[in-house]
Amino acid sequence: MSDLSLAAAQTILSTALDHCRKGNFKPMAVVVLDARGAVKAAAAEDGTSLKRFEVAHGKAFGALSLGMGSRSIFKRAKEQAFFVAAVSHVAGGALVPVPGGVLIRDAGGALLGAVGISGDTSDNDEAAASAGIAAAGFTADPGAD
Amino acid sequence: MSDLSLAAAQTILSTALDHCRKGNFKPMAVVVLDARGAVKAAAAEDGTSLKRFEVAHGKAFGALSLGMGSRSIFKRAKEQAFFVAAVSHVAGGALVPVPGGVLIRDAGGALLGAVGISGDTSDNDEAAASAGIAAAGFTADPGAD
Amino acid sequence: MSDLSLAAAQTILSTALDHCRKGNFKPMAVVVLDARGAVKAAAAEDGTSLKRFEVAHGKAFGALSLGMGSRSIFKRAKEQAFFVAAVSHVAGGALVPVPGGVLIRDAGGALLGAVGISGDTSDNDEAAASAGIAAAGFTADPGAD
Amino acid sequence: MSDLSLAAAQTILSTALDHCRKGNFKPMAVVVLDARGAVKAAAAEDGTSLKRFEVAHGKAFGALSLGMGSRSIFKRAKEQAFFVAAVSHVAGGALVPVPGGVLIRDAGGALLGAVGISGDTSDNDEAAASAGIAAAGFTADPGAD
Repeated sequence: MSDLSLAAAQTILSTALDHCRKGNFKPMAVVVLDARGAVKAAAAEDGTSLKRFEVAHGKAFGALSLGMGSRSIFKRAKEQAFFVAAVSHVAGGALVPVPGGVLIRDAGGALLGAVGISGDTSDNDEAAASAGIAAAGFTADPGAD
Repeated sequence: MSDLSLAAAQTILSTALDHCRKGNFKPMAVVVLDARGAVKAAAAEDGTSLKRFEVAHGKAFGALSLGMGSRSIFKRAKEQAFFVAAVSHVAGGALVPVPGGVLIRDAGGALLGAVGISGDTSDNDEAAASAGIAAAGFTADPGAD
Repeated sequence: MSDLSLAAAQTILSTALDHCRKGNFKPMAVVVLDARGAVKAAAAEDGTSLKRFEVAHGKAFGALSLGMGSRSIFKRAKEQAFFVAAVSHVAGGALVPVPGGVLIRDAGGALLGAVGISGDTSDNDEAAASAGIAAAGFTADPGAD
Repeated sequence: MSDLSLAAAQTILSTALDHCRKGNFKPMAVVVLDARGAVKAAAAEDGTSLKRFEVAHGKAFGALSLGMGSRSIFKRAKEQAFFVAAVSHVAGGALVPVPGGVLIRDAGGALLGAVGISGDTSDNDEAAASAGIAAAGFTADPGAD
């Protein structure tokens, strides 16, 4: 289990937010979790809805829970909604099965953590997360359709 | 209620893990519950995702909750997702309705406990659980499609 | 309800962390909540324990829940632990009744949010929160013994 | 964050159980968590009470949550019961503040996980955990009175 530093997490966060501003996205919440599922860095832009942080958190925490980017969980949810609902329950409720929960891997493929973003379309959320991860020198693993 | 000894649970566990290694399965979590639903033995291989133990546990606990292997709960979930979601709720959240939660029965059919396995395909998970139960001299009851 | 901007929250956060580094505090978690109790900004330094973010969050959320800095809740807990335990329950669990949860007020006294910090002694945690709030031009309300 | 292998966790587990048998302890539950708080290995001896695993788990999970052996949390609980109750709540409920939750550290002091044991006196529980950790070549950090 490798470490994600606060400095790297803040680079991911600020780059992701820059990406959102350049794309004129809606108000966004961004959260970066380490490999333990602990919050490492987070920010919510002005104007986000009441539970936007929790949605972003659930994308990242769900990705870590099952070890796959939330796009893959999204696919599974469309096929077997009951399975994803059950895992959500046993994982403590924090699992939001739509794109935008992206695993952070190092050059060797080791899991460092996950980024969760919510606010705009799921595709835009995911792209912002991946941009942030790349800026920190890591590999984004968003899952697959 | 019949007893499942720790020695028997450990035989189930080690045989199931051997089955997974021979089949080159992904990193697995295995949990053996006694008839009360208490954890008797558990192991998570290196590289499992954050909540893999909870998923394995939910397969076994769900099987005990309804008295049927989780393959039968899987069938019910496809027919009546709302029923399975409701049972998950009243059972305390630990019910994962896919194959891989296998009841342990003795020669007379008495219920001794359940094995839950997660990590590879649900079919592979279930086969590993059944192999472990057989090695301990008991009968595996995985449920039916 | 007055607004706390992300820019202000980030000033609070970075100043609080600078305060901790200058004081050679242990690894810290810092969270800034807006007046609704939503996460606005957060950071956890390298080496924090598994639930340090949740402790910091609970200090800030508790302060907002009862409308007083967590030092006042600490006093109440020493007098009437059952009351604080009950509020913790109805508030959703996130109420940690020790100093370090500090309300953010503007010049007119309006409530903008709260800062929660955990990692070192409660007094040091609180001082870091107050330093951050002052740097953003607001008034820190830590509660009273 | 360093890795705790399944092989090392099983050495800790079997040595701790041997220690309990040699001391003629009551029926014991033992759980080994990795640094993420995920179950790595567990066993419950024959005759354990219904929630003995959960007690053992709560000792280990509490130790990881606050980053100190549960003997230190025990001391804090005697001084400020309301604080420990609150952290228990925000940590998801899994925090049992008595000796027997022992952190696992490597030679460099890095945190690898925690062992939780319950069944006999707290002092005996703790000694069994420490014996297991030493047998795996690691350093036991049980906390202090």
